[in-house]
Amino acid sequence: MNNDDRWFQGHLKDLDPAECWELLAASEVGRIAYVDDHGPLALPVTFRASDGSVLFRVSAYSQLARHLPGADAALEVDDFDYFTRTGWSVLLRGRVESVDSDALPPEQDRPTPWPEGLRSLYLRLVVDTVSGRRLLEA
Amino acid sequence: MNNDDRWFQGHLKDLDPAECWELLAASEVGRIAYVDDHGPLALPVTFRASDGSVLFRVSAYSQLARHLPGADAALEVDDFDYFTRTGWSVLLRGRVESVDSDALPPEQDRPTPWPEGLRSLYLRLVVDTVSGRRLLEA
Repeated sequence: MNNDDRWFQGHLKDLDPAECWELLAASEVGRIAYVDDHGPLALPVTFRASDGSVLFRVSAYSQLARHLPGADAALEVDDFDYFTRTGWSVLLRGRVESVDSDALPPEQDRPTPWPEGLRSLYLRLVVDTVSGRRLLEA
Repeated sequence: MNNDDRWFQGHLKDLDPAECWELLAASEVGRIAYVDDHGPLALPVTFRASDGSVLFRVSAYSQLARHLPGADAALEVDDFDYFTRTGWSVLLRGRVESVDSDALPPEQDRPTPWPEGLRSLYLRLVVDTVSGRRLLEA
């Protein structure tokens, strides 16, 4: 790996919101960015995206449960091919709210956490802005 | 996909700092989390990690160049296998500083941006804390 300018670098193309939501609907893992007492951070979460909002689950005793409800946050989702150096990324920005159990979608539309352990708190990112970019081959 | 409890969920295991740096040294793309006027966000970057700091490059006219120097930030790097639902993630937290050209490492140790365009500003995340987790099969 080097930063030789002869390396052929790819083109960046903005994605429109419909493309972003389509990519999100087919994705399962993203990173939630938020701020705690030590500044900004990002942690992986599984999620389900639909209709302008994103649902995810956390343990009621986690740092995410402590800091996210009521806070500004963002979800970053991407997929890159290391060989061709192509891919895409989507960024959702908004505010997180807790979801009452009677406001939850049907079981099959809820996110599935990959790690073991009870994750009983459902959170929703209410999305203000959607942006995304695709990195095409040069 | 469902959140049926019969699904076998994986075990989470904390990584020690040496393991984290080893994984980072073999990685090329992460997400930088920071705060702008609208709150927290995370964007993909290519980076090079070594010796307790992380180097990456941005365009001098980018949002990253505007907000990162002097700011608290974090780099999240992960790799997940969607089939086995296993993988790992590492989080570096610290503060970003600009790097003078005479303080840069040799060419072959600098990060290579994937997209085209001049990215002349080198930034370093000076790392305060390193943490990581591995998600093992159930």
